[in-house]
Amino acid sequence: MTQLSPARSWVASANGHADFPLQNLPLGIFSVDGGALRSGVAIGERIFDLQAALHAGLFDGAARQAVEAMADGQLNEFFDLGRSARVALRERLLELLREDSPLRGKVETAKLLLVAADCQMHLPARINDYTDFYVGIEHAQNVGKLFRPDNPLLPNYKYVPIGYHGRASTIRPSGTDVRRPKGQTLPAGQAEPTFGPCARLDYELELGIWIGKGNALGEPIPIGDAAEHIGGFCLLNDWSARDIQAWEYQPLGPFLSKSFLTSISPWVVTAEALEPFRRPQPARPEGDPQPLPYLLDTRDQAGGALDIELEVLLLTEAMVEQNLPAQRLTLSNTQYMYWTVAQMIAHHSVNGCQLQAGDLFGSGTLSGPENHQFGSLLEITEGGKKPIELASGEVRRFLEDGDEIILRARCRREGFASIGFGECRGKILPAR
Amino acid sequence: MTQLSPARSWVASANGHADFPLQNLPLGIFSVDGGALRSGVAIGERIFDLQAALHAGLFDGAARQAVEAMADGQLNEFFDLGRSARVALRERLLELLREDSPLRGKVETAKLLLVAADCQMHLPARINDYTDFYVGIEHAQNVGKLFRPDNPLLPNYKYVPIGYHGRASTIRPSGTDVRRPKGQTLPAGQAEPTFGPCARLDYELELGIWIGKGNALGEPIPIGDAAEHIGGFCLLNDWSARDIQAWEYQPLGPFLSKSFLTSISPWVVTAEALEPFRRPQPARPEGDPQPLPYLLDTRDQAGGALDIELEVLLLTEAMVEQNLPAQRLTLSNTQYMYWTVAQMIAHHSVNGCQLQAGDLFGSGTLSGPENHQFGSLLEITEGGKKPIELASGEVRRFLEDGDEIILRARCRREGFASIGFGECRGKILPAR
Repeated sequence: MTQLSPARSWVASANGHADFPLQNLPLGIFSVDGGALRSGVAIGERIFDLQAALHAGLFDGAARQAVEAMADGQLNEFFDLGRSARVALRERLLELLREDSPLRGKVETAKLLLVAADCQMHLPARINDYTDFYVGIEHAQNVGKLFRPDNPLLPNYKYVPIGYHGRASTIRPSGTDVRRPKGQTLPAGQAEPTFGPCARLDYELELGIWIGKGNALGEPIPIGDAAEHIGGFCLLNDWSARDIQAWEYQPLGPFLSKSFLTSISPWVVTAEALEPFRRPQPARPEGDPQPLPYLLDTRDQAGGALDIELEVLLLTEAMVEQNLPAQRLTLSNTQYMYWTVAQMIAHHSVNGCQLQAGDLFGSGTLSGPENHQFGSLLEITEGGKKPIELASGEVRRFLEDGDEIILRARCRREGFASIGFGECRGKILPAR
Repeated sequence: MTQLSPARSWVASANGHADFPLQNLPLGIFSVDGGALRSGVAIGERIFDLQAALHAGLFDGAARQAVEAMADGQLNEFFDLGRSARVALRERLLELLREDSPLRGKVETAKLLLVAADCQMHLPARINDYTDFYVGIEHAQNVGKLFRPDNPLLPNYKYVPIGYHGRASTIRPSGTDVRRPKGQTLPAGQAEPTFGPCARLDYELELGIWIGKGNALGEPIPIGDAAEHIGGFCLLNDWSARDIQAWEYQPLGPFLSKSFLTSISPWVVTAEALEPFRRPQPARPEGDPQPLPYLLDTRDQAGGALDIELEVLLLTEAMVEQNLPAQRLTLSNTQYMYWTVAQMIAHHSVNGCQLQAGDLFGSGTLSGPENHQFGSLLEITEGGKKPIELASGEVRRFLEDGDEIILRARCRREGFASIGFGECRGKILPAR
């Protein structure tokens, strides 16, 4: 495990910051006033401008190479450099941003720090392919129960890290509005579909995984090497039109019900920042099969799971008017993943499929076993049958126009600084 | 309809050429001896070098803009220019390559023409997203029958142009070898899967469609405008591992069973070249529903279907040893598409999904109603139950190592020059 110092930063807002203390140092792409795309690091309420720091001569060797690889305003080339360049950059950033850094208090240093609230965040990378997995077993069971009460999990679930290809072109950073989609739906009891705005719009709480170094076509990534191919992590909201999904998804899977938008948090939280929050894979319940050998690795079993608290909040227009805070809908955890990220990578590439730097994986909805841990309204309201009451006096079966969904994440461990992911927000606009 | 001259070309091999007479002029990306990627036009057994012709001052106005947009060795930017730039380029190329062209017989002209056999073809564009449809109704019925004899077509089929997201990173040009994938399969009668090389490797005969100009996120492409967003056409082989597919595909659709490789023919046949081969949509059989209004357009009904003959040939190693020609497995036609390309585009974007220049669609397997028209071995051999006998004395249930599959296309119409697509080839290598 990387030695994590309890050190403080000379950037005052970083110390005790819920998401971005010195121990996090997530990478992202930002712009100011519509200018060029630049790479930066979130530190408290500030962004440390990596391109400016490069020009100021603050990087050497592998750290310099890492920042130079971001010069085109996207992290793909940096991801492709793999773990060693990322670690070198992190170590140098820890030196530069610590309390005892030589940068502290220098006039020219101010130019390297921007107020995050003044910056526009962008997608951190060009996403070549996006794959959405289904590794949240509680979600798979909850959704399966709605369709097949006696047999919620299909026979392949405990052998195959189920996933499908998603739409890459409609992934957007936090803050992008969500236009309610139109589409075909089959009204209950009818034989013919109608066309109109989605009436069952939902969120899905997911962990996003950035692929770092890719693999060549035809050359699978062994499970033991898979962790080396992780570029970082984010939050992902897989917005879902449940009524469109129910009518379209057989036999080839979800399509237009998901492809209108996918929101992600813009900061790439590195594997190094998450080291203290790795956990052993929970023992599989008695009777569950062991993974096939290509999915089994002792190091992955010992530390391939993650302990990240995941939260969903809803902010309605009425709450804003009543000065109410956003209301929590979900509090879950990445520990409910049935498969690790390394298993997802090994499985995805086992047929020779080429992964590329900047590919994005979604984990699938990460629900826990309890109602307050359910990662979608489909599960919370049992497909709309049990509406929830909000503090504002409203009720919700699914999302309404003007509703804003906010995802957050928090990693906590005794003796370590807590870190977070920043927010992933999206507000529903009425259908056109 | 574009006026198609019966004119001949001064490039001798073009006249009467099965694929690339003067009337076709497909666009592609090539290199010579590992050099830079260049754009070119197939004409007979030659490639007309567009970048060289540009430097020779042969293009003006919109045609010049079209060729300049290809300077980066991919057609994306050219696709994004839309129809008018493409038409201007075609008209200028017809002038330059006709029998009475001023280029004829000039010494410097020779430098503009390369021997196609000496060139390496590449993917014509950076493929951002790849969508595979399922519009071959005969294939959907044949496959459905294998699983649901009484009810082969699902209730949504005649309302929804069914499609799913495919893997973009593993699309390769004709000639790329196909490594037999490994994966999980469930042996007949067993409760637990095993891992190993695919034993039921198959081809799928499809039409590929290149997206030209894209649309903005949230702004659907109306059916009446959809034809303007077509960049061109190719052949597509959606290689399929049937045993992996059967075990993995529920509930989210095919994944590793398809993502190991997809082969395409490298030449982009333009909508203009295909104008004479457009046909009215065949009347829907009695009892079939009419398309919902967003999928209905009188111009598309009158001329949105295509009459393209599609062929699959198999060349085994034994055939090569015995000096036998490749044996035809399939002779089908794009007329078996239940939905037009315009309907596919309108449907794909109706939820606001953003299409981008260089996106690729597959039609889905285009089988006809007769056995010799079936577009996959799954259908021809009824899932391996009825092996076929080959002229070489061999039998096949599915593809074996060393087998090569060749797709071809031919457009014929009385009074018009026939055109083709060039080949889409791929040879099976043993599993690693």
